[in-house]
Amino acid sequence: MTSPTPRLGVAMIGHSFMGAAHSQAWHTAPRFFDLPLDPVTAVLCGRDEGRTAAAATRLGWAATETSWERTLERDDVDLVDVCTPGDTHAEIAIAALRAGKHVLCEKPLANSVAEAEAMVAAADEAAEHGVRAMVGFTYRRVPAVALARRLVEQGRIGEVRHVRAQYLQDWLVDPEAPLSWRLQKDRAGSGALGDIGAHIVDLTQYITGDRVQEVSARLETFVKERPLATEQSGLSATASTERGAVTVDDAAVFIARFGGGALGVFEATRFATGRKNAIRIEVNGSRGSLAFDFEDMNVLELFDATEPAETAGFRRILATEAEHPYVAAWWPPGHGLGYEHGFTHQVVDLVQAVATGTDPAPGFRDGLQVQRVLDAVETSSDTRTWQEIHP
Amino acid sequence: MTSPTPRLGVAMIGHSFMGAAHSQAWHTAPRFFDLPLDPVTAVLCGRDEGRTAAAATRLGWAATETSWERTLERDDVDLVDVCTPGDTHAEIAIAALRAGKHVLCEKPLANSVAEAEAMVAAADEAAEHGVRAMVGFTYRRVPAVALARRLVEQGRIGEVRHVRAQYLQDWLVDPEAPLSWRLQKDRAGSGALGDIGAHIVDLTQYITGDRVQEVSARLETFVKERPLATEQSGLSATASTERGAVTVDDAAVFIARFGGGALGVFEATRFATGRKNAIRIEVNGSRGSLAFDFEDMNVLELFDATEPAETAGFRRILATEAEHPYVAAWWPPGHGLGYEHGFTHQVVDLVQAVATGTDPAPGFRDGLQVQRVLDAVETSSDTRTWQEIHP
Amino acid sequence: MTSPTPRLGVAMIGHSFMGAAHSQAWHTAPRFFDLPLDPVTAVLCGRDEGRTAAAATRLGWAATETSWERTLERDDVDLVDVCTPGDTHAEIAIAALRAGKHVLCEKPLANSVAEAEAMVAAADEAAEHGVRAMVGFTYRRVPAVALARRLVEQGRIGEVRHVRAQYLQDWLVDPEAPLSWRLQKDRAGSGALGDIGAHIVDLTQYITGDRVQEVSARLETFVKERPLATEQSGLSATASTERGAVTVDDAAVFIARFGGGALGVFEATRFATGRKNAIRIEVNGSRGSLAFDFEDMNVLELFDATEPAETAGFRRILATEAEHPYVAAWWPPGHGLGYEHGFTHQVVDLVQAVATGTDPAPGFRDGLQVQRVLDAVETSSDTRTWQEIHP
Amino acid sequence: MTSPTPRLGVAMIGHSFMGAAHSQAWHTAPRFFDLPLDPVTAVLCGRDEGRTAAAATRLGWAATETSWERTLERDDVDLVDVCTPGDTHAEIAIAALRAGKHVLCEKPLANSVAEAEAMVAAADEAAEHGVRAMVGFTYRRVPAVALARRLVEQGRIGEVRHVRAQYLQDWLVDPEAPLSWRLQKDRAGSGALGDIGAHIVDLTQYITGDRVQEVSARLETFVKERPLATEQSGLSATASTERGAVTVDDAAVFIARFGGGALGVFEATRFATGRKNAIRIEVNGSRGSLAFDFEDMNVLELFDATEPAETAGFRRILATEAEHPYVAAWWPPGHGLGYEHGFTHQVVDLVQAVATGTDPAPGFRDGLQVQRVLDAVETSSDTRTWQEIHP
Repeated sequence: MTSPTPRLGVAMIGHSFMGAAHSQAWHTAPRFFDLPLDPVTAVLCGRDEGRTAAAATRLGWAATETSWERTLERDDVDLVDVCTPGDTHAEIAIAALRAGKHVLCEKPLANSVAEAEAMVAAADEAAEHGVRAMVGFTYRRVPAVALARRLVEQGRIGEVRHVRAQYLQDWLVDPEAPLSWRLQKDRAGSGALGDIGAHIVDLTQYITGDRVQEVSARLETFVKERPLATEQSGLSATASTERGAVTVDDAAVFIARFGGGALGVFEATRFATGRKNAIRIEVNGSRGSLAFDFEDMNVLELFDATEPAETAGFRRILATEAEHPYVAAWWPPGHGLGYEHGFTHQVVDLVQAVATGTDPAPGFRDGLQVQRVLDAVETSSDTRTWQEIHP
Repeated sequence: MTSPTPRLGVAMIGHSFMGAAHSQAWHTAPRFFDLPLDPVTAVLCGRDEGRTAAAATRLGWAATETSWERTLERDDVDLVDVCTPGDTHAEIAIAALRAGKHVLCEKPLANSVAEAEAMVAAADEAAEHGVRAMVGFTYRRVPAVALARRLVEQGRIGEVRHVRAQYLQDWLVDPEAPLSWRLQKDRAGSGALGDIGAHIVDLTQYITGDRVQEVSARLETFVKERPLATEQSGLSATASTERGAVTVDDAAVFIARFGGGALGVFEATRFATGRKNAIRIEVNGSRGSLAFDFEDMNVLELFDATEPAETAGFRRILATEAEHPYVAAWWPPGHGLGYEHGFTHQVVDLVQAVATGTDPAPGFRDGLQVQRVLDAVETSSDTRTWQEIHP
Repeated sequence: MTSPTPRLGVAMIGHSFMGAAHSQAWHTAPRFFDLPLDPVTAVLCGRDEGRTAAAATRLGWAATETSWERTLERDDVDLVDVCTPGDTHAEIAIAALRAGKHVLCEKPLANSVAEAEAMVAAADEAAEHGVRAMVGFTYRRVPAVALARRLVEQGRIGEVRHVRAQYLQDWLVDPEAPLSWRLQKDRAGSGALGDIGAHIVDLTQYITGDRVQEVSARLETFVKERPLATEQSGLSATASTERGAVTVDDAAVFIARFGGGALGVFEATRFATGRKNAIRIEVNGSRGSLAFDFEDMNVLELFDATEPAETAGFRRILATEAEHPYVAAWWPPGHGLGYEHGFTHQVVDLVQAVATGTDPAPGFRDGLQVQRVLDAVETSSDTRTWQEIHP
Repeated sequence: MTSPTPRLGVAMIGHSFMGAAHSQAWHTAPRFFDLPLDPVTAVLCGRDEGRTAAAATRLGWAATETSWERTLERDDVDLVDVCTPGDTHAEIAIAALRAGKHVLCEKPLANSVAEAEAMVAAADEAAEHGVRAMVGFTYRRVPAVALARRLVEQGRIGEVRHVRAQYLQDWLVDPEAPLSWRLQKDRAGSGALGDIGAHIVDLTQYITGDRVQEVSARLETFVKERPLATEQSGLSATASTERGAVTVDDAAVFIARFGGGALGVFEATRFATGRKNAIRIEVNGSRGSLAFDFEDMNVLELFDATEPAETAGFRRILATEAEHPYVAAWWPPGHGLGYEHGFTHQVVDLVQAVATGTDPAPGFRDGLQVQRVLDAVETSSDTRTWQEIHP
């Protein structure tokens, strides 16, 4: 049985945590969704030859490379999926776009506004030649989150007055947790702020359709020194006896005003003991409210203020119905999806955009705007002043 | 400042757990509700003179008696509130009714169907002389429960198909918990079945407006012997070194068919470790569903199946709005009520019935019908057969 | 039966929402708790003679006055309970203390720091003569909240890193809701900030045993004009056709740093559609976390990080056990308390302090400190700067 | 890069709902787990050539067959995965085992006890030749469920006293939902009982390590006639204007006694409006309790009664830690799994058993025992008597 669907050769750079999630998405998307292009997991690129080969076998990639530059030269590669730490995003993504490859770049887009601006310039130029660029704010594609966006767009909650967003993890509570690359400013750009704060900035802006306009922030590093990691792979790392300085924030809190007048309260931390991956977003509007918590990811709560008081209440929508975004492709009602499904939906939307010649969302410009918010947050914390975000 | 409201002299028989709850209700009702009669806490009756006097001071009763017979003879008593163990209900209540006193009788109405029938006969006769009788199924008067009834009555959930009801406690899990009167068949009539099972039989019938028609049941006594209690007062008792036989059930489970065709599943137990007073009722109908749990007593959950699938979900109605039953008399929205408020609402409804000359609900006939269901449950368990409940 | 307990004559100034709650507490406390003094509800004071008399009948007060000055002169009054709007607190409380009356003053202590300072001075002076002063941060006395404090004190959650606190209501979402005294700066001092924000400032400081040290804040008034209220009583008011300016905040958000280094995020609003009285507090420490939500007020959630990962999880403690603060006086496990029980506990603690000649907590000094935090929040919002709170 | 792992050729019979889930599992298992054999998705077998070919392309199978007999003859097939309706299980599975193929058979094992017995005989015989047989009670492999089993085995909840189990769906509430094969006794064997009731019988027995010993049951068909389905595929079907009789149960309720003395209450229904796939299991023991609900599938609730009352409570264990069954292979804490992950875990355990020459669990004998319970339930309902299940 031959498929007439045109091929889309994919190369992935990096193969740790994000690499595993992206691989599964590239494999799974065509099995559950009707795609206009057939993604082929052509090349896996990593620095270490042996480990890259082992990863390719396990994750199901046809070939390997140890140089991302060489990877970009390959004719069997149409799209480059950048899953490396943030300090390499700009260089790889810009080169890939210039080489005429579509790009999917993990978030945060870059480690600085300047880098992100250069990436947007490259993406704009590439777009003129039909080359597409997307940034991986995957959580947008959790069905309950996409449903939240849809309901706001339909006016179901009216004018937005309050946005409260938390991204709570606790993997650094132990002061002996080792100093991985995620705790080093030169590699990661920032700490909780860029790693997880970026997500709630993007998600709240996506759901409300509005933008953060100004912020007052405070960053904190509770544990200033940690054991050096002897080896690093993904999220895990082994501790050594030497210690090094933590150069990023453990937690970031900020208040904000959105363009449309809503008040925002944000908190991103790796010190919320007992919270594992609690992305909690609540939006209160003049006609209703929405609430989401990733620790119960198949649920969206909706309060409809037009309902009589006698029967009004936050309703727990189990976002597993065919009527919900992305769900029709999966299982019957009540059969929940998991973390990695968002990556599959991301592949679906990206392949669709590439095939139809449209700009995927979120694009690099969205990534840049988030970077500007993160930058304003850091500056605000450093200078103890309110900072505006210029569009 | 003189009140023109006519006086309603109340005597209460018994002053332990239920006595405290009823006292608070008699005091509180006129402070929050407009009552057509002014209840006066006239006489407290108990067996022990000293303890009764102390209770009267504490609970706020004007006079005391140590004989319930003498209490019934008093002219300053218009209503008798029976808060004693079940084996004395029939005798006291019947005598009170014959003495022309209105009666509020704690549940279960009696320890046997025969006693309950005699009580109904007495109540019927008394009713002809304008004397009223009510049985204390207090949980009906939790606002969220009364709201459930209202919604079923309005047709909001359509035709009822499933009723699942649990009353879960855990105070007997410890095999050294002493043998109180509640574990003795001659005093208590039955165990979990009559004490707490009675409530879920009443509540499910009240909410659905339907009646249990037949049952298949199993009773179980997990711990057959317990230390004798040296002294008994209310729910607490001190253990002695001697042991005695537990002569009632620790748990009762039964399946049922309601008159209207719904299937019922019931469970009452004192061995549900970790559940303290979990009265959980879920009703599924052709157009919607309702769910309630007393451990979160200010909430009623409603699923409305006429809602589009995209936004349908169980909504958590915080039953603290002025639109909810009994709530307008209390606090602003979101300021929850507690356990004893149901007793206050019971007093309100009873005083209203007495003043307007109408039969209060639930009346003794309702108590008798519940008694028949409990009786059928016991017989079913003993004989391992289905048992019908005759109206 | 005569009680040998010495009498404590109480006068209450004001009889709307808070008056009803305080009345119920004065009546109920001696029925459920062993008090060293017997509180007598002697005098109710209100401006309007007829309405005050009606309230006294209903709420159970022996006599009435229409002048608070005259009330303070009465010999049968030992304690003055101030339930009026904030602009009158200072004058009445100071006069009462000088008249040698103990004082319970509703929160916020005053409408300005200056007034609060004068009140503290008066309280300090009165204390030298054995006269006591307490401020009514009642929510401290919800059993689940008092349990939270106890657990932090025991070191169960270790060093506190994060405090997130929200007080969410929605009664102003409707732009036609009338302009009550609570929306007028001269009467109420501030809006959501002083009315409900004060509670979460007090609660978080109480639970953590730490103090807010600096803040960056933003206040917002979403609806600038509202219909004038024609008549005002408590929380309810009738709308007229004329409109007036809302001169207080609808919502207040701020980030904070506590003295011990914890980061705080606070939000108080009357525009959180669907949230009725959601006081939500979460505290993350180095060894565990606590979470509370008043909309499920009998529950405290605890995460114990010393538990093995396999079985660690937020546990839902139903704070209805005899081992929990205040609960032994009430009902068996699982029989929840309601909103007004906190007021009863407040009376219990106050009477205890008066009888034993100790300073009640929270005292006026605690009220002043909260006032200073509120003041810093307002200044921060006005000046767009961080503000320190000086002890 | 060549893998030295020996090949395991898999053929799957059937390709609708279960086929999609199983396919995804065969593809995913080797990417996330270290398997001793390399499963190859060799052959997909279906009745219709065109539809089977399309499914093979989509689901990723190398070849197709339209005869299951021919499929069994193929040398490239080592294992047969039976995903057809229940009426064909016995014939195909027995033939496959006789052909020396390992078998994974969807549940319920068969449509009758007799068929199931024949299957066990075939499995026993095959086992002597190293051929393995497993029945697909997939929900055992949800991490939270496997954790529940582990905790019971460790004695964490002590002696089991109560088991309450519900499997609630609502897809038949609409009386116009068409008459699919699942509503026809000759195809499906039974209705809610065999389709979903089978799961809760297996799960409760698995978690408790005990067996249902006797039952009293009631089956009900609420809607007796439905529109005929014109075309059937998986769970969906299109309605025609003709009507046919529903020959299976819409709902089944039963009470039970387990061998160890625990009381059980079971309920399986397709009429629980608003409940989509609510598999709810609660087990109360002498030292603790466990609770699970598949609609929040990454959570297990545990109550530990050895904890002091002050801090005891049901804890919400987010079963996403590396310490939890199967989880180490997946994502960091808090990144939940979905419905289909259970199928992947099933493949992992089956491949492990095949490679190590051990009997997989649950085996056909487990499937037969569940069948006997289902049979006893039906007989009990028909005869209105208690029925014992003989081992």
